[in-house]
Parts: sequence; C-alpha cells; structure tokens
Amino acid sequence: MKVMVGISNRHVHLCEDDYKILFGDIPLTKRNDLKQPGMYACNETVTIKGSKKEINNVRVLCPLREYTQVEVSKTDSYTLGVTPPVRNSGDLFDAYPITIIGPKGEITRNACIIATRHIHISKSDRIKHNLIDIEKVSVKLSGEKSGIIDNVYIRESDEAFFEMHLDTDDANAFLLNNDDEVEIILNR
Amino acid sequence: MKVMVGISNRHVHLCEDDYKILFGDIPLTKRNDLKQPGMYACNETVTIKGSKKEINNVRVLCPLREYTQVEVSKTDSYTLGVTPPVRNSGDLFDAYPITIIGPKGEITRNACIIATRHIHISKSDRIKHNLIDIEKVSVKLSGEKSGIIDNVYIRESDEAFFEMHLDTDDANAFLLNNDDEVEIILNR
Repeated sequence: MKVMVGISNRHVHLCEDDYKILFGDIPLTKRNDLKQPGMYACNETVTIKGSKKEINNVRVLCPLREYTQVEVSKTDSYTLGVTPPVRNSGDLFDAYPITIIGPKGEITRNACIIATRHIHISKSDRIKHNLIDIEKVSVKLSGEKSGIIDNVYIRESDEAFFEMHLDTDDANAFLLNNDDEVEIILNR
Repeated sequence: MKVMVGISNRHVHLCEDDYKILFGDIPLTKRNDLKQPGMYACNETVTIKGSKKEINNVRVLCPLREYTQVEVSKTDSYTLGVTPPVRNSGDLFDAYPITIIGPKGEITRNACIIATRHIHISKSDRIKHNLIDIEKVSVKLSGEKSGIIDNVYIRESDEAFFEMHLDTDDANAFLLNNDDEVEIILNR
C-alpha cells in the first residue's frame, strides 16, 4: 500500500520547565500546522550546540511535551560533534547530551537522538491497511536513486494522520520531496 | 559478493586552465592518497557558491582533469541553492552552474553534479566477481538503518581499486563508515 512522505528537518521539542528557561516570558507562536493533528511549528527557534559547532535557527515544535528532545540527522551530528543513538521519539534513555540556547537562557540535556524512520497511523487506518500487530515495515522508494529502507516503525496514535516521517539524510539520499507517495512492503 | 564503502564528501576536480585562474602560481600539494591509484586529496581547498549560500573548505582532488567538476550531495545543493542532476563523473552535458572561488580568482562553470552511486572496478576484478557486461547493480546495506540502494553503476578502469563510492547523504542515511563491507545484489 502507498504512504505519503513527510520530511523532518532538525527540530526541538520542549518541556514546560525548559521552555521557561530558554524563552522566559516570550510566548511560542504558531508558524504553521503540521500534518499530525494538533502539532505545529513555531516561529521561535533555538541554537543547538555540540562539542564541535553550533547550528542556528532550529525550529521548536509544539505543543510542549513531558520531555525535551532534540532530533537531528547523522549529517547534523557530524557538524555538531555529537553521537546520538537512533531512537523512537520519547525513548531518551541513552540520548546524547546537547546544549540548547534560547533568547533568555541555555540548558544542557541528555536529549539528542536521530529519530527512527517511522509511520504515523491511527487504529482505524491500521485495520484498513492490514498493519495490525506489525512493529515495523520496509518501504520501497522509486526514482533516479531508488531503493528500499528497512526498520520503518509503525507508530499508532488516536488522531494520527497516515504518513511516513524520514529525516533529511534519508530523504536526500533518495531525492524525496514532501508528499511523495511511496510503497510499504510487508514481508522483505 | 562483498565490496568496501568509500564515502565522498563534496569535492572539486579542476582542469589546468581553471586551476591557473583559481590558484595562479600556488602549487597543489598532496594531503593524502585516495584508494583509487594515482588519485589524491590536496591540502588546497576552494569555496563553492550557489544562488543561496557558499560552502568553504571544499577539497580539490588531483591529478588535474580535462574538465572542471564539482560534486555535491543533495543536502549541499539545498544549502547552496543549486539543482544539479545525478550524473556519472565526466557526464557534464546538463551540469548545473556553480561559482568556484580560489585564493587568486573566481570562475563560474556548468560543472555541478550529484555523483551517481558507483563501484570502481578493474577488468580482472570484473571477471573475478562475475560483473562482465553489467551496467549497474543493487547493494544491500545492513545495520540499524538497513536497506537496499539501486542504480549503483559499475565503473571500469585499468588500475581501479575495487570499492563503492557513495556521497554523504547515502552514507549518513544508512549510518555507514569508510571501509564498511556491504553486499552486491545482482538481480533485484
């Protein structure tokens, strides 16, 4: 079956306490809605900093979460000088330390991961697309630099919009654009 | 069969005339040998510039060639603001215009490509590995972000060292390192 591609550039999720340290009284304001219902990108950005370099203009995604999380690509990790693990969102057990700099303050947290390739799906879409009890799939990507990517995790949530999230390394390796349609393979 | 990975960061090949414009009397000096016999990376670097930004410290590879060529990743192309085609080295028919800045001068050439995924091979290795008359193969990549890449071109030359060249997007999407061993698939 087909699924739409959504490309995640490096970004930051913040918990309430860290937001206050970084932004003080400055409110976070909506720049644009994301396809996942209720989620949006903010006008506000932060700087993230590793042992080697910093990267500016890293967007904050909202709403605030229970935890602070910085998602980067492997390419970003070389630029920054960090060695984050590949993890599902929220799985921060061994996330890599990274410094986040906002207009009002600075924090260092064990918060940096490379996000797994994953597909957001609702329970009803899961039934519709025959993806019940399936933890991960492979996905076929066509075009001039075609191929197959494995270990694409199925992430179910109540209101999910059915789409596959890839980071910029995966997307650029296969010359993908947002909203491209690609093919899920169940048994590879 | 197995093949070793060599990762190509963005780099520049120069023809004699363009070298003289960019470097004048400054000699190009060897920094390190590459695995392909006779090829080496120079200590000297240039700046490359598109419509959006420039990237500094782009290494010059030697020896000089009959043509000037700038090889970037898709990620680099977004940074620079250029839209190069995916082409085999030397196939510059519709290469994208790019500006190259050296210590003594500046040139703009239709020279920018994203290099195809490719495997360097000698005639004898081609016979040994059953790759005669084969234009391209797929390659299986293992690890946490595993998968398969297609359209890996077989590039024969007399003295070739048997290795697969990937750009940093492909390498980073699959978390590959230099000298990793990966598996060629003949019929996918």
